[in-house]
Amino acid sequence: MYATPLSMHFAAPLPLQSGASLRDYHLSYETYGTLNPTRSNAVLICHALNASHHVAGVYQGQERSEGWWDNMIGPGKPLDTERFFVIGVNNLGSCFGSTGPMHPNPDSPTGQPYGADFPVVTVEDWVDAQARLLDALGIETLAAVMGGSLGGMQALSWTLQYPSRVRHAVVVASAPNLTAENIAFNEVARRAIVTDPDFHGGHFYAHNTVPKRGLRIARMIGHITYLSDDVMNEKFGRTLRDTITSATGYKFSTQDIEFQIESYLRHQGDKFAEYFDANTYLLITRALDYFDPARAFRGNLSRALAQATAKFLVVSFSTDWRFSPKRSREIVKALLDNQHDVSYAEIDARHGHDAFLLDDARYMGVVRSYFERIFNASGAKP
Amino acid sequence: MYATPLSMHFAAPLPLQSGASLRDYHLSYETYGTLNPTRSNAVLICHALNASHHVAGVYQGQERSEGWWDNMIGPGKPLDTERFFVIGVNNLGSCFGSTGPMHPNPDSPTGQPYGADFPVVTVEDWVDAQARLLDALGIETLAAVMGGSLGGMQALSWTLQYPSRVRHAVVVASAPNLTAENIAFNEVARRAIVTDPDFHGGHFYAHNTVPKRGLRIARMIGHITYLSDDVMNEKFGRTLRDTITSATGYKFSTQDIEFQIESYLRHQGDKFAEYFDANTYLLITRALDYFDPARAFRGNLSRALAQATAKFLVVSFSTDWRFSPKRSREIVKALLDNQHDVSYAEIDARHGHDAFLLDDARYMGVVRSYFERIFNASGAKP
Repeated sequence: MYATPLSMHFAAPLPLQSGASLRDYHLSYETYGTLNPTRSNAVLICHALNASHHVAGVYQGQERSEGWWDNMIGPGKPLDTERFFVIGVNNLGSCFGSTGPMHPNPDSPTGQPYGADFPVVTVEDWVDAQARLLDALGIETLAAVMGGSLGGMQALSWTLQYPSRVRHAVVVASAPNLTAENIAFNEVARRAIVTDPDFHGGHFYAHNTVPKRGLRIARMIGHITYLSDDVMNEKFGRTLRDTITSATGYKFSTQDIEFQIESYLRHQGDKFAEYFDANTYLLITRALDYFDPARAFRGNLSRALAQATAKFLVVSFSTDWRFSPKRSREIVKALLDNQHDVSYAEIDARHGHDAFLLDDARYMGVVRSYFERIFNASGAKP
Repeated sequence: MYATPLSMHFAAPLPLQSGASLRDYHLSYETYGTLNPTRSNAVLICHALNASHHVAGVYQGQERSEGWWDNMIGPGKPLDTERFFVIGVNNLGSCFGSTGPMHPNPDSPTGQPYGADFPVVTVEDWVDAQARLLDALGIETLAAVMGGSLGGMQALSWTLQYPSRVRHAVVVASAPNLTAENIAFNEVARRAIVTDPDFHGGHFYAHNTVPKRGLRIARMIGHITYLSDDVMNEKFGRTLRDTITSATGYKFSTQDIEFQIESYLRHQGDKFAEYFDANTYLLITRALDYFDPARAFRGNLSRALAQATAKFLVVSFSTDWRFSPKRSREIVKALLDNQHDVSYAEIDARHGHDAFLLDDARYMGVVRSYFERIFNASGAKP
């Protein structure tokens, strides 16, 4: 399946939760499959920290350019693009196409990039922007909204912000808000970026540099939290990178790479620092921190979710310690408190948080069955 | 109880595991209580990352200078200094008194500090140095060696390196080696320090600066792993630092402190960067990475612990995810495989790894009982 990146321009300012507004922005998006005549088979995919609108398929001539959820979405796949019209959209503030910190700030007389002046955007703001994209595409109601991790938060938020526009929400490896520990990891990553001398208060573009040291540290921290302790031990354990002829096999160095896990993490950090924008990292981690639909209800998630009318599939993974199954069960309980229709699958998987992106027969099977159900319900038929 | 820091000079070079050696070094230490005439009531305390020889008591005139294990050690305390002669010793490479990276390098013609040239030291090297201190103090056999976390690794190593010199080992909140995840956290912290432009390849003393940015990040990461998710939620949760009059209460900033947990972590990082040495941080985390007594036995811990003759008390804490109870149980199992004498207590405590430093009636009670047993065994009587 070939994908084509598209872009939609929005002239009307988008009011943000912070009180600021974003004007003259565009959203990058892709679509897969065909919208049916009744416009009832659209599924919106929301992305997490390090992803984009390129959800499935490949770009023509670039056979290794698979979308980030290509194992999940495509012809005959669990979310079958022969049945559903699937939309991937890149969020505002990202660095993969939609308007973000590296784009010209319309308030700058010289057309300087936003940099650190890009307004703080929230999950709710992203959902508002996505709703406008659907308006422009002529889609009033989604057959489903689906996302993993931060994407799952957007799916959940859709059911609260636009209850009448969502029939189903698929919330994978997500949480109703961040714990103190989650916020703590985000904060360390942000401090690493912000205190990198190359950050220049977020205006590093003008200095023709990139705070790569900070980005590397941020990514290394992130990676640790995406993997389970078990799978790290399986994949890397205490294996040394190089075999040295000495009694212990150690090099006895504090700065050289000694263990495979160090090599892996440094490589991940280096790769990330090459392509990811530092201001985007700050914005996206902050959107994670701020998301908390129960907040307006004094922490009562059941009251917060009362307004949802969608049916839900909630999926969690046993070894995910970033957004543990316990957090998904909080969502399920709050939905049940409201007698909402919810299916819940807790997948016994070894890969920690990353499991939501990986192949697992039971996981894929559950999602496939759920979309079968949506398809078989009359409204979604093409 | 008043404490007095002492220092012992060693002229004979100490051969290190790396093949290098350390010459003309000194060890800072403190003692509490009285050595009995048969010299059989000595207990050695080994410290973890951020501690020193100042284990118990206060310095005269500084009433708030309690030792780091003052709740555990002193007159009438679980380790009773009216019965035992307790020795605290600062490890080589530390920044609290014993010879370390900020001391003059005897190989430097101009007396420059070691800096990054301080040789890599291991748990085994520390134990060797501690054994020489005991020689100098005229103590052949320890009633017990005791430590928490990295200190517990030293206690365990004592029973393998000098089996005939240790009657009991108390190993608290420790592990037989680091997991890949443990190494990963250490590596991120080290990278934060080493890539700080103020690190100057470890020779920052000559540049009259300190890599504070890196040290702050290192400490923030460390702190997250010392606390349990539960206690972080109890102590900080999602509480905001400042109350803002807005619909959400948020400031909508990526760089300002928004949550209490951020304020706490930044404060811990700032404090640490004021007093801790960057090269010491690299050395101590590397000693943690390298410790692995089973390594010489192809990963077989049971075979590695066969040579121990001491009796053991092993203690772990239910919410410790840095060195989880599972890791302590590995030690216990390997001891039992050898039919060694071991008592094991898994304390149901909320504070994560930090619990080993905190008061807990059951924890303190277990240690007290164990030292009663040692005292009641004839050899330890004063």
